[in-house]
Amino acid sequence: MSREGVTPQSEDFSAWYNEVVIKAQLVDRGPVRGTMVIRPYGYRMWELLQTDLDRRIKEAGHDNASFPMFIPESYLRREAEHVEGFSPELAVVTHAGGKELEEPLVVRPTSETVIGEYMAKWIDSHRDLPLLLNQWANVVRWEMRPRMFLRTTEFLWQEGHTAHADEDDAMRETMWALDAYASLARELAAMPVVAGEKTPGERFAGAVRTYTIEGMMRDGRALQAGTSHYLGTNFAKAFEIQYQDEAGKLVPAHTTSWGMSTRMIGGVIMTHGDDKGLVLPPRLAPYQVVIVPIGRGEVAERTGEAARRLGAAIKSMGIRVHVDDNRPQLSPGFKFNDWEMRGVPVRLEIGPRDLDNGVVTLARRLPTADAQGKEAVPLDRVPELLPGILADFQAFLLARAEAFREDNTRPADSWADFAAQVPTGWSLAFHCGRTECEEEIKADTAATPRCIPAEGPAEEGRCVKCDQPSAYGKRVIFGRSY
Amino acid sequence: MSREGVTPQSEDFSAWYNEVVIKAQLVDRGPVRGTMVIRPYGYRMWELLQTDLDRRIKEAGHDNASFPMFIPESYLRREAEHVEGFSPELAVVTHAGGKELEEPLVVRPTSETVIGEYMAKWIDSHRDLPLLLNQWANVVRWEMRPRMFLRTTEFLWQEGHTAHADEDDAMRETMWALDAYASLARELAAMPVVAGEKTPGERFAGAVRTYTIEGMMRDGRALQAGTSHYLGTNFAKAFEIQYQDEAGKLVPAHTTSWGMSTRMIGGVIMTHGDDKGLVLPPRLAPYQVVIVPIGRGEVAERTGEAARRLGAAIKSMGIRVHVDDNRPQLSPGFKFNDWEMRGVPVRLEIGPRDLDNGVVTLARRLPTADAQGKEAVPLDRVPELLPGILADFQAFLLARAEAFREDNTRPADSWADFAAQVPTGWSLAFHCGRTECEEEIKADTAATPRCIPAEGPAEEGRCVKCDQPSAYGKRVIFGRSY
Repeated sequence: MSREGVTPQSEDFSAWYNEVVIKAQLVDRGPVRGTMVIRPYGYRMWELLQTDLDRRIKEAGHDNASFPMFIPESYLRREAEHVEGFSPELAVVTHAGGKELEEPLVVRPTSETVIGEYMAKWIDSHRDLPLLLNQWANVVRWEMRPRMFLRTTEFLWQEGHTAHADEDDAMRETMWALDAYASLARELAAMPVVAGEKTPGERFAGAVRTYTIEGMMRDGRALQAGTSHYLGTNFAKAFEIQYQDEAGKLVPAHTTSWGMSTRMIGGVIMTHGDDKGLVLPPRLAPYQVVIVPIGRGEVAERTGEAARRLGAAIKSMGIRVHVDDNRPQLSPGFKFNDWEMRGVPVRLEIGPRDLDNGVVTLARRLPTADAQGKEAVPLDRVPELLPGILADFQAFLLARAEAFREDNTRPADSWADFAAQVPTGWSLAFHCGRTECEEEIKADTAATPRCIPAEGPAEEGRCVKCDQPSAYGKRVIFGRSY
Repeated sequence: MSREGVTPQSEDFSAWYNEVVIKAQLVDRGPVRGTMVIRPYGYRMWELLQTDLDRRIKEAGHDNASFPMFIPESYLRREAEHVEGFSPELAVVTHAGGKELEEPLVVRPTSETVIGEYMAKWIDSHRDLPLLLNQWANVVRWEMRPRMFLRTTEFLWQEGHTAHADEDDAMRETMWALDAYASLARELAAMPVVAGEKTPGERFAGAVRTYTIEGMMRDGRALQAGTSHYLGTNFAKAFEIQYQDEAGKLVPAHTTSWGMSTRMIGGVIMTHGDDKGLVLPPRLAPYQVVIVPIGRGEVAERTGEAARRLGAAIKSMGIRVHVDDNRPQLSPGFKFNDWEMRGVPVRLEIGPRDLDNGVVTLARRLPTADAQGKEAVPLDRVPELLPGILADFQAFLLARAEAFREDNTRPADSWADFAAQVPTGWSLAFHCGRTECEEEIKADTAATPRCIPAEGPAEEGRCVKCDQPSAYGKRVIFGRSY
């Protein structure tokens, strides 16, 4: 239970985030530095994301499977860029069963290598393609600057791994996954992410092309919330994932991989939260509605009974509701603040006078474009009104986040404009495409190319940093990132 | 794809098991000794078990959460019996992020210790109890004699961890979990398990009382398929899980833990399988029905089209169905054997002559008490008939397994009878309760006490081994086990 408020977001965004994840009971710091305990209130959000994404994954023909988390060190070395990218972050098991192991085992940072090994075993002919696999798993990447949800030493994710006969089919898959992530972010998390390709300097270790969805957080920074990679034949060649084509010739498959993780929850927090704490989109809220009965003693019995009856009616409509009737030691005001801090979309207050008048006080977490924060609503109409109120609140959060992103995304045609924009938002700038130039920009401003937006209009210009011709036929989104 | 049959179960049960799990595409051996890759066909069974059990867990008021898999070695040492029980099986991370760690981390073999640490933080008052948590996770126990599903170095499970105000409430929880496991085994897996308490010699390391569900495999051996532990105040004292009672006094909580794992899939395989391969209960079968269209060339187009149409009609009823229309290189006979080996409950064959007559050939994986293996069924009635056929098949498997267990469970009142019974089944015998005596029995016969059956009638007698008075007021089930 939270004993006090949080540092306002507007004062110190970083302190606000670190406090709210703990005080809202989403997580606790794990016993080992950089690890996290996901508490029921946070885990429920993960389950809601999982359920929706798993349905999309299965409907598109993928099968879930489970691969071991211990990978022989030698596997990682087979793809040169891959091992270079991940080596600094590995956790290594050297002893097991009371003995030193002959070959150290790494705890998977991602599973391209081990899954590649089995794809090679399972694929013989073109009839075995496409092979569409997914797994829900934990992975480990040792983090120097850990932050709950955003960068933790162990995190939960799904990783899709697929093999295809040719580049066209593999690219269709790569874009399917990107689109699934963008839809998930938009529809469930109310995050209006921008989808696009990463520049070569920002690609996944071992990929030919990397695509990303990027969300703008309320401090103007970007969060990469899901990535999809076309791996070409890099892993296919390293692991001999090959098939006999219709002419009987052995050819390497084209593979993809794509992942979405518990990081998405960090994105939800930073896209919608405000000075008071979390603001949760109804489709991801563990409790969409909380009912607080008011009064002490005999009055509490009356309002508590009404609250439980209303809760049952709301629950029967498939709405996630919680009745706060087991904390008599706390004042109503404390409870209101507590549920606001925890981001519950709709709070219903039932006092004795309300009951006499046949109404409840309905409080939205925020006033929306069309509705004020608090209003009195006839008690018996609450269940029928809630689905519309929750849907409106969900739509309002998406629209608000979209407007915020638009307001804080500006084209820059001079270095001065660029440098002025990236501390508080995104800059749309031309870039020469050279990784060294990206690195200079990062050293000067802490901003990196977030993506080449898929929907950006065709335009040519000169690099905002070095004045060479632009490389991508459109502007690139630059911003500071998590 | 399976290229040949399996060693008959009746010839060599162990070879049969090892072959069938691979050839039916349930699993593959992992790259590290003792690990397994769970392939889509096996993982779907796990998902079906998960979905059902997760629903039961949530309906009973538990919340899912996620705790880190790396546990400081010092945590395990806090409960003396616990560390002694698990030390030989631990995998240890000594290096991470390119450095040697100051304190080695063990990969969780189970999570009582780390969850205990957090229960202590989260529980203040009697109002915070009961605290009902569950997690779906991977755990690691280094296995000297690994076997797919039954004993693997890494396995998937759920682990419930709860804290209560007193022994009564904790014992109710312990028995709730045991009952949930028994119902899951019986209703989904068609495994007529026996529920009961473990003898002191067979308890979980750190438990006050351990309960188990035991199934009889078709070689007469027992499989422990789920356990539920009342931990008393052992972990509460080691981790200071305490609460203020209504009088304001600080008292230790009473905790429980309970787990069900991918081992259950091994139980399904060995409870129902036969010489030809797997026999899957419909409620756990990835494909409840497979349709095999017959014929080549133009005929294949006709039967294939009919098969896909029938498949769509069956799918729309919520039945898991697969149409085998993408392997023209294989003969119908090969396909029939393949799906039998893979345990599909119902196979539908559609040949050109069947089509002309408006029928399909329906083949059950086994003839049941009321129905022969193969019969012709009117094509247009197949969708409406299937739910009943699948339900009957599920009920038949349960009844058959129950009869098998009854036939192979016998009371023994002499050592000679006992020694003759345990190589092929279970023996119901009196036991003195001494762990040394259990160990002698094990050394002589390889049999161990599986459980003191909850439903066994009250009876007194003398120990089948040492002739001392019986300790449990009823007979104990002894058998060899996996």
